Amino acid sequence: MAVGEQIWPTMHPVAGFTLGTASAGIKRVGRTDILVMGIAEGSTVAGVFTQNAFCAAPVIVGREHVDAGGIRYFVINSGNANACTGDKGIDDAKACCAALAEAADGVNARQVVPFSTGVIGEYLPVSKIIGAIPEALKNQDINGWTLAAKAIMTTDTRPKGASVQFEHDGEVISVTGIAKGAGMIRPNMATMLAFVATDAVVSQALLDSIVKSAADKSFNRISIDGDTSTNDSCMLVATGQAGLPMLTEPTGELYEKLLAAITDVQQQLALAIVRDGEGATKCVTVEVLQGGNSEECLKVAYAIAHSPLIKTALFASDPNWGRIICAVGYAGVPALDTCKVNVWLDDVCIVKAGMRASDYTEERGQAIVNKTEFTIKVELGRGHCHDTVWTTDLSHDYVTINAEYRS
Amino acid sequence: MAVGEQIWPTMHPVAGFTLGTASAGIKRVGRTDILVMGIAEGSTVAGVFTQNAFCAAPVIVGREHVDAGGIRYFVINSGNANACTGDKGIDDAKACCAALAEAADGVNARQVVPFSTGVIGEYLPVSKIIGAIPEALKNQDINGWTLAAKAIMTTDTRPKGASVQFEHDGEVISVTGIAKGAGMIRPNMATMLAFVATDAVVSQALLDSIVKSAADKSFNRISIDGDTSTNDSCMLVATGQAGLPMLTEPTGELYEKLLAAITDVQQQLALAIVRDGEGATKCVTVEVLQGGNSEECLKVAYAIAHSPLIKTALFASDPNWGRIICAVGYAGVPALDTCKVNVWLDDVCIVKAGMRASDYTEERGQAIVNKTEFTIKVELGRGHCHDTVWTTDLSHDYVTINAEYRS
Repeated sequence: MAVGEQIWPTMHPVAGFTLGTASAGIKRVGRTDILVMGIAEGSTVAGVFTQNAFCAAPVIVGREHVDAGGIRYFVINSGNANACTGDKGIDDAKACCAALAEAADGVNARQVVPFSTGVIGEYLPVSKIIGAIPEALKNQDINGWTLAAKAIMTTDTRPKGASVQFEHDGEVISVTGIAKGAGMIRPNMATMLAFVATDAVVSQALLDSIVKSAADKSFNRISIDGDTSTNDSCMLVATGQAGLPMLTEPTGELYEKLLAAITDVQQQLALAIVRDGEGATKCVTVEVLQGGNSEECLKVAYAIAHSPLIKTALFASDPNWGRIICAVGYAGVPALDTCKVNVWLDDVCIVKAGMRASDYTEERGQAIVNKTEFTIKVELGRGHCHDTVWTTDLSHDYVTINAEYRS
Repeated sequence: MAVGEQIWPTMHPVAGFTLGTASAGIKRVGRTDILVMGIAEGSTVAGVFTQNAFCAAPVIVGREHVDAGGIRYFVINSGNANACTGDKGIDDAKACCAALAEAADGVNARQVVPFSTGVIGEYLPVSKIIGAIPEALKNQDINGWTLAAKAIMTTDTRPKGASVQFEHDGEVISVTGIAKGAGMIRPNMATMLAFVATDAVVSQALLDSIVKSAADKSFNRISIDGDTSTNDSCMLVATGQAGLPMLTEPTGELYEKLLAAITDVQQQLALAIVRDGEGATKCVTVEVLQGGNSEECLKVAYAIAHSPLIKTALFASDPNWGRIICAVGYAGVPALDTCKVNVWLDDVCIVKAGMRASDYTEERGQAIVNKTEFTIKVELGRGHCHDTVWTTDLSHDYVTINAEYRS
């Protein structure tokens, strides 16, 4: 089950960025489970990685390689996360990089970044992966985005892609990306990967800042159940093949357009993950306004997004305002004046000044929560900060899927 | 559904403490929903109350009355929480105190502490409650504990009581208590109340410290879904009727015995709440050892206790070690060295030095998680602190109950 209908977008190719898939038979013979992405020389590459202390071997290796620069390839396998695999896991991830470097010629292993997604705690079938790499290299195609999106799926019910273009000084810039993840609901199918490429020309330092900033408005703001995986990674590549001067400062019209386009693509991918949350029947935006600072806005937003009581009420299409204000109350906002708190479901005010709004009726709330997508908006009455989080409901299917997954 | 069998304990009366119930018909005509507890003059009374910013009117009034001292009565109603009811809620809570004071004669309203539990956001039916108070006063009985435990039930499937006695200097001291709460899973049936009495002689300051210390080993360590209610309160009364000198310092044999007895009663009540968590099929102890400080032990324990992924795995009796270490990894322990982390299910080591234990087999883990009660033990390898939390699984019934509760 997934929320809403999906229309696969036009995936604009990005000059200097190619994609090719192959089958290594990691979990099932014949399943396409290897993806190699080729990155033109001179590109800049930036990434954000999981904060989980048990980060997987490819994350450890990949972070080191990205920091060193000069990245030419990504190699991704699905079916096995290479997480909690100790020193052998590190060696295995490096072996995949070395194999690709050798097959690609003129590249060294440190110019390859490895990614794995799948089951935790099992050793990577390195020889199978190495055996499939030449095929994935041979299949490199600037139009390989759609096949690539399918190759990295694990528990996803849909491939996830987004692509936008914008014009600047007569030049068309493309931003295209793919992601996998069924809402972090299965961290031992560890879990979220995203790859976004643009042909814009961006300095390393600025690209580092853009990927973080866009992640904080997208992948870092989605929550299915609050669990954070060992393998989560989001990569941003700027191939620099567009005929434009290099962006080095976070100012100016081009920068603003590019940041908006990358944020847009990452938000579309993040929302696709939420909508594909296993068992999800709703995609809910939680918006917290009038906070004294960003931290307290996020505390309130996550208290709501993580509350199993609110999530089960959402599943039941129950406009349960008591559970929402309970979560606001225990979110840990210091000295919260409850008399200043308002809560809205879309444009229907349900709580005014800390009490049920006098003109609120169950029917008006019901009309909103019957929808598959709507917004819970909280006004804290403390300042001018705001933040937004996206989440799902908690359904019987969630319990079924997660209770029965290993059996 | 509730975990395990219940044997109702012998409820030892406490000299100087009486209980009487009556029916006000708050939600249903004929339902016993009023409880009055009489406290002998000269008793000391201490309490801990919810930290939720949206605390209910009776909590605001009650906290003020307890601080002023000289408490002679508790008046409790079930069926309506008097929460999110603004200034009128405060007036209503005070009106109940005033009515009891008038009926009891020689007592003023400030010597009465009000408690409410039930639905949020509806005004208290004050006249019904006031009408039932004389009956509850007439029924005052030193042996009224069992009826009292039933009167405060809302969504509970069982009454909850615990009672212990110990001897000191030839004198028998009793500690007896009751509680209500079906595991905080319904904060709009707001939610946990506990009342414990002893005939020990304890100074106000020491009683304040004992109730906090015992709560931190009981009611403050249980979690069904991480939601915290607007009405949670735990009261401790020392009537001072035992023939013993007054305890004023947290030292000595009598103090240690009394603290142990009160902690024991509060733990029994807290565990009874966990076992009665609606939809619960397991009662799981989460023990975190070798922490650098208590805070990081609790972070890890709650990360495990709150993870829907772990809780659904528990429901499925699935020894899913990957989900457990994921939660340890994202709990936020600074600079956690994962190579020092061990995880046990009872006496079966599942994770050793951050990896799956080499002698671990699925069968050995399965044997533990098949039980209805067991312990998840995490060793952090950072120091000598430890803490313990109790929780439940997340079942289909949890979703059903919480999704369908208001319809």
